[in-house]
Amino acid sequence: MSADFDKRLHAVAERVEAALDALLGSKPAPGEIVRPRRVLEAMRYGALGGGKRLRPFLTIETAHALGSVGEAPLRAACAIECVHCYSLVHDDLPAMDNDDLRRGRPTAHKAFDEATAILAGDGLLTFAFAILADPATHRDADVRVALCLGLARASGLGGMVGGQMLDIEAETAAVPLDDSAIRRLQAMKTGALLRFAVEAGAIVAGAAPARRAALVAYGEALGSAFQVADDILDAESTSEQLGKRAGKDAERNKGTFVSIHGLDGAKRLRDAFVSQAIAALVEAGLQSEGDILREAAHFVAARAN
Amino acid sequence: MSADFDKRLHAVAERVEAALDALLGSKPAPGEIVRPRRVLEAMRYGALGGGKRLRPFLTIETAHALGSVGEAPLRAACAIECVHCYSLVHDDLPAMDNDDLRRGRPTAHKAFDEATAILAGDGLLTFAFAILADPATHRDADVRVALCLGLARASGLGGMVGGQMLDIEAETAAVPLDDSAIRRLQAMKTGALLRFAVEAGAIVAGAAPARRAALVAYGEALGSAFQVADDILDAESTSEQLGKRAGKDAERNKGTFVSIHGLDGAKRLRDAFVSQAIAALVEAGLQSEGDILREAAHFVAARAN
Repeated sequence: MSADFDKRLHAVAERVEAALDALLGSKPAPGEIVRPRRVLEAMRYGALGGGKRLRPFLTIETAHALGSVGEAPLRAACAIECVHCYSLVHDDLPAMDNDDLRRGRPTAHKAFDEATAILAGDGLLTFAFAILADPATHRDADVRVALCLGLARASGLGGMVGGQMLDIEAETAAVPLDDSAIRRLQAMKTGALLRFAVEAGAIVAGAAPARRAALVAYGEALGSAFQVADDILDAESTSEQLGKRAGKDAERNKGTFVSIHGLDGAKRLRDAFVSQAIAALVEAGLQSEGDILREAAHFVAARAN
Repeated sequence: MSADFDKRLHAVAERVEAALDALLGSKPAPGEIVRPRRVLEAMRYGALGGGKRLRPFLTIETAHALGSVGEAPLRAACAIECVHCYSLVHDDLPAMDNDDLRRGRPTAHKAFDEATAILAGDGLLTFAFAILADPATHRDADVRVALCLGLARASGLGGMVGGQMLDIEAETAAVPLDDSAIRRLQAMKTGALLRFAVEAGAIVAGAAPARRAALVAYGEALGSAFQVADDILDAESTSEQLGKRAGKDAERNKGTFVSIHGLDGAKRLRDAFVSQAIAALVEAGLQSEGDILREAAHFVAARAN
């Protein structure tokens, strides 16, 4: 990874942090009555102060590679990050993964309480659509509503929510998942939102259908590389490095890319997905303006947490 | 209440039930991967088989009074009902109201389990936006995105989610809420979505701003009448009549319209809101085509559960 890439990732994370901080202010928007302090604080706790902001980065850099900068990709990125953060808050709940630690801090239900964490998650999910549908996101209603539809499909029962359900079921299944079941689970649980993060950049930039489809393929391959890398990380890292509990997968005896393909096999699979992602960028007709997206594919494969 | 009104309420409920049943089918929509059986079943459990469908009724009848019928108001109504049903599933959770009974059936976390109920709620909330943003709802993207924005604002931190937070805080507050605090809480917790149900009908029908504003005022007054009636019902009914646990408010020692105004005072307040709702229909310029909405205002005040 180049030092430039790291700098750019950090710069985008700071822009997203500042934008989310402003969006999650105490002043009610038109149509809102008041923003009650406690749930707002819990939403801010869940959404601010951490994370690589990989999804926002993908949205903003995809749009940028296509010539679109400014509020539209930034707000779309913030909405997608709200959905990602809500999913972490809910997944950490006692009834779900029951995690006490996230990004090295107490999880939301530990810092607040369970009821507040459930509501904060609900609030962040809803807020994502309030951001996207707002005329401040894009002057063209067709663009805004395409973002709403894409986000809802990626994060709902046929995407992230469904993937979390499959993940929970896998833990109590009699036999570990096989390769195709894991791929489907991961494509839904984390892949769909990563893919949509890229697609959202193409949508705000008004990409033509063929280019948009190629970028969706890039996002899908990058998401797959991310998932395999995640299993590798879980098998190789300590909790301290991850900022969350490590070795959870083996502990729970559910199938992973590592348990099926071995560590070396999983690394080969990961690298194949990276190559696939990079090929899709060529397909999308991106030259040097696509360099940062190429680096992003390498980054998700090589990240240390 | 006329027999005609009851018939119409039932007829709309049946149309909504059939439409939700079809929308929540097992076939994935474009952009979805698969719809995992367990979370789909839990979403169907939460959304189908019960309820007066008051919010859908308001959307459909408001649109109808303005000359709009067909898929657009029906789908908008279904989306709003999904949000209402998700809120019931999450509010019933052990960490929230901890209710075992809803509409005379086990609550979702009792019929399934807590994790599945959380996910089903998340799934229904997300699904609402997938319905609204879909081109099948309305040919005009401006209409679809206005529905998304209005629903997000009404149901998020400055609306329903925030109202639930205030409600939870009220239970552990040192002193019961006063009249203005209760009005704000109720306006957020149940009022915002009832108001938006009416507004959504005006949006799909393309109502002019002044008429839309008058209908919003109708929805707001009707929502207020509903909330006061709810407190009266809770004080007067048995669990058997309600299909859920009665007398919860007094038990929890939080302020209600009845505890502040007494039973007779609360009934006068309820009737004043009904009059206000009916005056707003005159303001909206509705003659006999508004009769059903007038009856709806009386209905929410007089309902027995």
